[in-house]
Amino acid sequence: MALSEFELIRRFFTYPAPGAVLGAGDDAAIVRARRGRELLITADMLVAGRHFFRDADPQRLGHKALAVNLSDIAAMGATPRWATLSIALPSADARWLAAFARGFMRLARRYRVDLVGGDTTRGPLNISVQVIGEVPVGRALRRDGARAGDDVWVSGTVGDAALALAARARRVILARGERAGLERKLHAPAPRIALGERLRGIARSAIDVSDGLVADLGHICERSKVAAEVDFSMIPASATMKRHLERAPARAALLAGGDDYELVFTAPAAKRPAIAALSRRLGLKLTRIGRIVPRARRARMVTVRGADGRPLPLARGGYEHF
Amino acid sequence: MALSEFELIRRFFTYPAPGAVLGAGDDAAIVRARRGRELLITADMLVAGRHFFRDADPQRLGHKALAVNLSDIAAMGATPRWATLSIALPSADARWLAAFARGFMRLARRYRVDLVGGDTTRGPLNISVQVIGEVPVGRALRRDGARAGDDVWVSGTVGDAALALAARARRVILARGERAGLERKLHAPAPRIALGERLRGIARSAIDVSDGLVADLGHICERSKVAAEVDFSMIPASATMKRHLERAPARAALLAGGDDYELVFTAPAAKRPAIAALSRRLGLKLTRIGRIVPRARRARMVTVRGADGRPLPLARGGYEHF
Repeated sequence: MALSEFELIRRFFTYPAPGAVLGAGDDAAIVRARRGRELLITADMLVAGRHFFRDADPQRLGHKALAVNLSDIAAMGATPRWATLSIALPSADARWLAAFARGFMRLARRYRVDLVGGDTTRGPLNISVQVIGEVPVGRALRRDGARAGDDVWVSGTVGDAALALAARARRVILARGERAGLERKLHAPAPRIALGERLRGIARSAIDVSDGLVADLGHICERSKVAAEVDFSMIPASATMKRHLERAPARAALLAGGDDYELVFTAPAAKRPAIAALSRRLGLKLTRIGRIVPRARRARMVTVRGADGRPLPLARGGYEHF
Repeated sequence: MALSEFELIRRFFTYPAPGAVLGAGDDAAIVRARRGRELLITADMLVAGRHFFRDADPQRLGHKALAVNLSDIAAMGATPRWATLSIALPSADARWLAAFARGFMRLARRYRVDLVGGDTTRGPLNISVQVIGEVPVGRALRRDGARAGDDVWVSGTVGDAALALAARARRVILARGERAGLERKLHAPAPRIALGERLRGIARSAIDVSDGLVADLGHICERSKVAAEVDFSMIPASATMKRHLERAPARAALLAGGDDYELVFTAPAAKRPAIAALSRRLGLKLTRIGRIVPRARRARMVTVRGADGRPLPLARGGYEHF
């Protein structure tokens, strides 16, 4: 009997699940949480033409579909454990599927995440991923823990993925070498799992930069009922970003660009030595960009000040999902 | 400031989550499994034009999108606890969304399932749901537990949803009253949660009928390395189904129709009294339709015998996903 298309697809997404009691193949997977752990649940949907280009490299897309969810788990200070993947495809293209699965599974193995189930169906290209993680009870890094007086920190550099998109759209002109470096950040974001895990007990709140630095810091302020003051000159920018920062699209990318998957977090000033030590240990730049202040009535939640100390006029907080 | 479309949508899918530590609104939801429990994870994707008609009633669709996942949890003998919903929509149609959310949440509340997260985005209509359930450690009803000598049972009546579809396609002609009754089964399947939970300790294996009776019983046989013999005359059929059973499309619906979400399970003969008692207690028909036998080389996994004792010629095991 010839393999049906369905069987063919199932093959691409069937892997051992050493961290599960029972992996894919039954009505549901069976897993066991470790003792004293809470579970984190997150889900994201990626749609062709909206979250990625229709001709996107499938291996990078597989990586990204998982990475965006791992980034959410990292932002909670948690360890990812299990994932499900539901995918709608216009046709059963074996080469595309193999490449997609390669990108997805390479990242999954790196973080010991088991793919334990999901669904495959015919339809307009749509990738829906859920990830479940674990964290010791009560230790998750939530958006609602920031307090006035906290420092505001960000990992790595921000805005590079958005700058790559701006270059594609010819809103900024980059040298070829510059663009290649940024595209890597756009296509293969590295979820900050190790950073998130080690920020437990250090940070009071955290979020990943997916809607843009200002918008995501705003989400922390909203949930924590505080405001934030950020120094524009402190925001960590890549060398390429710095070279183009006099251009408005580059500044927009820095402040409002998503898709970098760096973490923004807040911590008391007393934690500065611990954060410096963590930065060295991880070999990852962690930059203090501002501080949390009480929220004044009618004031902005996030104020970004230029070199002259005046607030920058911010047009739009971040990326609109809809 | 006017509400963005995104905010509008978020409203439709933001509800209290009393069974979660932290519901939607952070990078991930936080939940706690009860002590001594394993977790069940399942995910399904529904695509317009493939799993439902483009003009499908949104409230029924909301019900169905959750019900198919609850049915998977029921088939594991588990209790559903938390759900995520990711949805892509061509436009932010408030009336459609309100109706969809009503159908989804009505069913969720009935089974105390918390909607703890997900995603909303613009794109071709696609509904991706994940459900996490709980079961006491080691007590899940798996597909691989059937043994030769087990009885084969099915709940309710099967094939009604498929018969409704056949009537829509005019492959069978039903009276108006007949069709309305069947359409209810197609649009508002009742997940057999209570049955699944109470089959723990009684059944050795279980699956929900989503690909069709023969195909799904075949999945049990495949995973359990056994075969099954079914008496055609024993398969529980609705009054409408019985009236049309001389027609080929009706017989196909009975044997290979999906979307009923009844449970097929196997149990030792010694459990017959317990199953009869359970049927009375739940007010739900449970019918013994055959038995599990050793698997012979090259033999069919599932043989359905007619009144003359001869195997029926089965063309196709069930619904092809792709």
